[in-house]
Amino acid sequence: MMIDDDMENGNLGPYQDRPRIFPNMRSKPYAPWIFRILMGINVRVLFILLLLGLGVVFYIGASTSPIIVFVFSVCIFSFLFSVYLTKWVLSKDEGPPEMSQISDAIRDGAEGFFRTQYGTISKMACLLALVILCIYLFRTTTPQQESSGLGRSTSAYITVVAFLLGAMCSGVAGYVGMWVSVRANVRVSSAARRSAREALQIAVRAGGFSAIVVVGMAVIGIAILYATFYVWLGVDSPGSMKVTDLPLLLVGYGFGASFVALFAQLGGGIYTKAADVGADLVGKVEQGIPEDDPRNPAVIADLVGDNVGDCAARGADLFESIAAEIISAMILGGTMAQRCKIEDPSGFILFPLVVHSFDLVISSVGILSIRGSRDSSVKAPVEDPMAILQKGYSVTIVLAVLTFGASTRWMLYTEQAPSAWFNFALCGLVGIITAYAFVWITQYYTDYKHGPVRSLALSSSTGHGTNIIAGISLGLESTALPVLVISVSIVSTFWLGHTSGLVDEAGNPTGGLFGTAVATMGMLSTAAYVLTMDMFGPIADNAGGIVEMSQQPESVREITDVLDAVGNTTKATTKGFAIGSAALASFLLFSAYMDEVATFAQEPFKQVDIAIPEVFVGGLLGSMLIFLFSAWACSAVGRTAQEVVQEVRRQFIERPGIMDYKEKPDYGRCVAIVASASLREMIKPGALAIVSPIVIGILFRILGYYTGHSLLGAKVVAAMLMFATVSGILMALFLNTAGGAWDNAKKYIETGALGGKGSDCHKAAITGDTVGDPFKDTAGPSLHVLIKMLATITLVMAPVFL
Amino acid sequence: MMIDDDMENGNLGPYQDRPRIFPNMRSKPYAPWIFRILMGINVRVLFILLLLGLGVVFYIGASTSPIIVFVFSVCIFSFLFSVYLTKWVLSKDEGPPEMSQISDAIRDGAEGFFRTQYGTISKMACLLALVILCIYLFRTTTPQQESSGLGRSTSAYITVVAFLLGAMCSGVAGYVGMWVSVRANVRVSSAARRSAREALQIAVRAGGFSAIVVVGMAVIGIAILYATFYVWLGVDSPGSMKVTDLPLLLVGYGFGASFVALFAQLGGGIYTKAADVGADLVGKVEQGIPEDDPRNPAVIADLVGDNVGDCAARGADLFESIAAEIISAMILGGTMAQRCKIEDPSGFILFPLVVHSFDLVISSVGILSIRGSRDSSVKAPVEDPMAILQKGYSVTIVLAVLTFGASTRWMLYTEQAPSAWFNFALCGLVGIITAYAFVWITQYYTDYKHGPVRSLALSSSTGHGTNIIAGISLGLESTALPVLVISVSIVSTFWLGHTSGLVDEAGNPTGGLFGTAVATMGMLSTAAYVLTMDMFGPIADNAGGIVEMSQQPESVREITDVLDAVGNTTKATTKGFAIGSAALASFLLFSAYMDEVATFAQEPFKQVDIAIPEVFVGGLLGSMLIFLFSAWACSAVGRTAQEVVQEVRRQFIERPGIMDYKEKPDYGRCVAIVASASLREMIKPGALAIVSPIVIGILFRILGYYTGHSLLGAKVVAAMLMFATVSGILMALFLNTAGGAWDNAKKYIETGALGGKGSDCHKAAITGDTVGDPFKDTAGPSLHVLIKMLATITLVMAPVFL
Repeated sequence: MMIDDDMENGNLGPYQDRPRIFPNMRSKPYAPWIFRILMGINVRVLFILLLLGLGVVFYIGASTSPIIVFVFSVCIFSFLFSVYLTKWVLSKDEGPPEMSQISDAIRDGAEGFFRTQYGTISKMACLLALVILCIYLFRTTTPQQESSGLGRSTSAYITVVAFLLGAMCSGVAGYVGMWVSVRANVRVSSAARRSAREALQIAVRAGGFSAIVVVGMAVIGIAILYATFYVWLGVDSPGSMKVTDLPLLLVGYGFGASFVALFAQLGGGIYTKAADVGADLVGKVEQGIPEDDPRNPAVIADLVGDNVGDCAARGADLFESIAAEIISAMILGGTMAQRCKIEDPSGFILFPLVVHSFDLVISSVGILSIRGSRDSSVKAPVEDPMAILQKGYSVTIVLAVLTFGASTRWMLYTEQAPSAWFNFALCGLVGIITAYAFVWITQYYTDYKHGPVRSLALSSSTGHGTNIIAGISLGLESTALPVLVISVSIVSTFWLGHTSGLVDEAGNPTGGLFGTAVATMGMLSTAAYVLTMDMFGPIADNAGGIVEMSQQPESVREITDVLDAVGNTTKATTKGFAIGSAALASFLLFSAYMDEVATFAQEPFKQVDIAIPEVFVGGLLGSMLIFLFSAWACSAVGRTAQEVVQEVRRQFIERPGIMDYKEKPDYGRCVAIVASASLREMIKPGALAIVSPIVIGILFRILGYYTGHSLLGAKVVAAMLMFATVSGILMALFLNTAGGAWDNAKKYIETGALGGKGSDCHKAAITGDTVGDPFKDTAGPSLHVLIKMLATITLVMAPVFL
Repeated sequence: MMIDDDMENGNLGPYQDRPRIFPNMRSKPYAPWIFRILMGINVRVLFILLLLGLGVVFYIGASTSPIIVFVFSVCIFSFLFSVYLTKWVLSKDEGPPEMSQISDAIRDGAEGFFRTQYGTISKMACLLALVILCIYLFRTTTPQQESSGLGRSTSAYITVVAFLLGAMCSGVAGYVGMWVSVRANVRVSSAARRSAREALQIAVRAGGFSAIVVVGMAVIGIAILYATFYVWLGVDSPGSMKVTDLPLLLVGYGFGASFVALFAQLGGGIYTKAADVGADLVGKVEQGIPEDDPRNPAVIADLVGDNVGDCAARGADLFESIAAEIISAMILGGTMAQRCKIEDPSGFILFPLVVHSFDLVISSVGILSIRGSRDSSVKAPVEDPMAILQKGYSVTIVLAVLTFGASTRWMLYTEQAPSAWFNFALCGLVGIITAYAFVWITQYYTDYKHGPVRSLALSSSTGHGTNIIAGISLGLESTALPVLVISVSIVSTFWLGHTSGLVDEAGNPTGGLFGTAVATMGMLSTAAYVLTMDMFGPIADNAGGIVEMSQQPESVREITDVLDAVGNTTKATTKGFAIGSAALASFLLFSAYMDEVATFAQEPFKQVDIAIPEVFVGGLLGSMLIFLFSAWACSAVGRTAQEVVQEVRRQFIERPGIMDYKEKPDYGRCVAIVASASLREMIKPGALAIVSPIVIGILFRILGYYTGHSLLGAKVVAAMLMFATVSGILMALFLNTAGGAWDNAKKYIETGALGGKGSDCHKAAITGDTVGDPFKDTAGPSLHVLIKMLATITLVMAPVFL
């Protein structure tokens, strides 16, 4: 599909000797018009435009709050920094032609799939926007809303606009991740020929670029929406809505982001793992050729998958994580400020934006702290890249503790409770420690330096069956410690918030939930750096693939292999990090949902009592939803992989010369098969996630109407949400850890342990790795998007359940 | 261990030609003293003793309620019927010496393991009884309890005695299951040489014997306790306790039953699957010899496993299912009768006992409806045994509908709500339909006549990896329909009960939960027949093993193979049935727990509000418990299987003559290894299940004390219980179905599809089957025992959480 005819049918003349140059490939770069314009502009013009933008920002900011001005400025400086990073990365050489040609093929495949996938997603988003519009136009409004000038149609348009903006930003976040990774991969491969340190630096800076854009876009998007609504609705002027109600209008943004992220993750995850599994099953297991060998017809599809599955999807995923967390914390801050009658509530509401502004700054420092060795012409001995990345992470964490403390003092100091800010600073510290604990636990269960993966590798020596049993047990067991950590941090931060001294009019302590919210922010306060480490993984993986395919010398492969292994660990730890923050964030979204329902229904909604049979049934259905979703996500990969296996087998049979480099495999056909299959397969699980909460809410609303049980629909949906969150956290932890552990058990054996490559033990370990692929890269990461999407969809759809 | 020296070291002279007679094996039958006495008594004496017992029963019954007399009579007649069945089975011949010698070895192994296992379990039970005694002796009592003469020590002794009695009966239930199966297996093998129909009939009647004993013992045990407490405490006389509070005293019985069943299922499940997996991995996969081949050193351990894992454990499991369900329904009936001020509440309280009395009668009819063909000397063509069993099931179901309707009219008619009994009859019908739907859904997902297993088999053709992915997806997906069925039946029966016309003093409808209880009884109203079908499976499996090991002609093997395949399906359906009833029963136990807490705490406890952070955390921990328990159960099998694999490999290397029948494998060593390993491994998951609810309850009780949150410990435990139940249901469905489907996908390929035996596809399917073994026979069945044990342990330990 993406590869031109020349390549599809070209003879493989020069392919037999080194350097095996690929036939010329089509390389018409694709970029959305907005990017083409931006990239085409002269730097000075861009600078002037940015200055103009800054002017507008200052104008809106001055009308809203100085904090918004601060947030805007930091974001804009971060974008400038990211432009510097990308210029730096792009200035590196693309290596010899055989490398750049492979890279072009990957870029074509990735951009082609991205175009088709996001075409489908945007159509679905528009359809959903229409549905939301209709719901909001025909629902009843509360008298308060009417009196505050927020009529039916206004709130409908606000929600829809926020939804579409969130969806668009999420899409751009995904695109940015992929855009830089398809350009950085070949530059990392090329640099690996010179020094490991330089290759590492390029991969980190490329990852850093997209991380900063993703986080910055989430922050500035919300800030712009907030400021615009503030000015447009004349908030806080007499007769208008109160500023503490404003964050509830932003919910659509979070839902749009989650919606796109879910389909991006599903489609990309199915793509990458179906190609990977298909390529491995025939290539590694049946034919015994190495990973990323150019003779494997599915190898280009596999490399394309890294970009669309890991880079694009993870960009969208982290974007929605941060957006959902910021919005839910803002809603909570507003509600609490209102209850406590705090004079200037903007500090509590805008706190998350400030935290993430500092996140941008400190993560930039962390990224810059990873430098090339002074004399890059000398091949330095390969250092442990993990240690370098960890050093950068330590720098970032230390700065995070300091800036977080400062932000709490600045934003959360109130005369009503002078020591409250200190309690909240402690909550933030708990959050940072939780993040660190998650990273540590994930490493313990997925790194082959530790016991669990080693005993998993040992169990491979008794066969495929025991390997799988051991891997599944390991994954199930690995849920325990993270859950204990999360439990301790929820209970302790709730208690810290509760005792912060903030009380409502009746004197009841009200800061509990906000304490948990602050902990979530603490956990995510190094998000940009963590995302950088995450993006580093697929870029290094891709670079390794290009090195392997272009048949570089062994020494170059060694460098990319080391980077790839480190990338695997950082990817696993980011998933732990994402699921931990999802667990905390969902807990905030529950309470936002309950507040929203109470507002709409004009009756208190404080309890979700699972002793009521219908509510319990809602919980049962919520947990079941997680199992069914995981089933469909995994089976989608299995089915698509089977198509790839059959195609690859067919090619090996019909073109027997492939194995001797005498015939060229048809890479394009594999790319096309995987692309169309993964687009087809992402619909079913995605639709399940969106439709089922709505259907259940409406069904029980009707049941409640006939049995005289008020708010039944809303209660059942709340229970569904909470049970789905709990089951989703556990299932995602299980899937991610088991997948990562299988992968690294295989890598451990490949280092020569237990018989090494080619032994029966290695074959059993490859089976485990294959099973783990859809676990850790399709179902697992989709699940934590799903958790938050369920929370935001119920928030947006709340009027339907009443 | 169990096999004597003669066999361990004997030469294999006669082994090379058919019939390959085994060297003489030790065969000192082991039976507990109570069985030895009973079996040694002359039939007439036995009859007189029974008559005497009947006299005592009539005396107690007359002092309690005529319903109790009815229940006693039915149970005693059922025991007589079971004696007839066992006499009939034992009258069959044991076949040629080579069969009976294998059978003796199996019996020795099974009884040896049983003795050691139950020795360990009984020690733990005594320890736990002491703990319970202390807790009850040092807790505070309520004034009502004091005034009703139920002082601290009385209730402590009552709970402990009930616990020990429940534990003992559960143990006897397990023993009975194993006792008959180690005797019936060889008789089925022998009969298979004559006719399929006769073999089927023996297996069914042997299964029927233990089913009737198990169900009858559960019913009569509770009835005796009830009547004794009634008479002893002078219930319903002025100043004494009310009859409606009596069922709460029986909770210890249920806990004792669950406690023993959990360890029986864990130990037996680990034993059977470790032996099976170990035997298969080396025998089938590495050496390519058939299942149950006498050359495999682990084959005797595997056959022993069927008896201790499937027969003994399932007996204990179903016993505790029925006991827990009867007790929870009695508690609910009592509470409701009290709220509605029904004049004679004994109908509502004793209803479950009557339902299960009829269950005994109609299941006996169902068992008898399976008859030998008229002319058993002629080898009739092999009929589909599944059809025969299904016919018997249909007979039983039709009778169940009729008797259930009659029982509701008899027991639940009250003048306050003249039509209530009809609503409850409908609830029972819903329960019966639910049971039927569960059986159907399980068959759909696990029988290779249907799509799911066929596509699983197809996915094996692309390798081990895709087979595992497809199996896991299938298992996860298979949770959806059962959950929908359970949801519909909970909501609809609650509604039927709610509208039954039963109202409390304030006019609020109160029958809702009792409706669900009646549905649970409806679901279990054919329990004895279902258990018969279940017990049939391992007996047929064992018979097949004996036929294979004693090298019978192909035609005999064909007969046992067909029976074995049917047994697999019936085993899978029983698990679906058990999990469905566990789901409903747990829901009743929640409300019993809440009632109990309210009574102890003397404050209302009506809500479990998961919007409270600590309560939510309790739920999170509850779900995590399920994941961790499953992990430990699976990894126990994996670890033990690895020990077996190493031992079997060692034997094949050290005794190269085994493969040519020139050397004898050392069966005894495998038996000993599996026995000691499985006893060691059952402790960790078992202890987790018992200790964690207590620890969490106490921790949060302390936390609640310091934060001034009353009943926090009890609330957190309630949430933990509910989340654990939901996750446990889903996880058990997943594990059971995936395991069954993998097993049958392998069997489907063995019928010749997709390349048949020995193909790569078959090898991949064997890997799936191996993975499924601990899923479906260790972790899965343990989980539904765990669910109910959690419910009963929280009921018994409730005073600790306050």
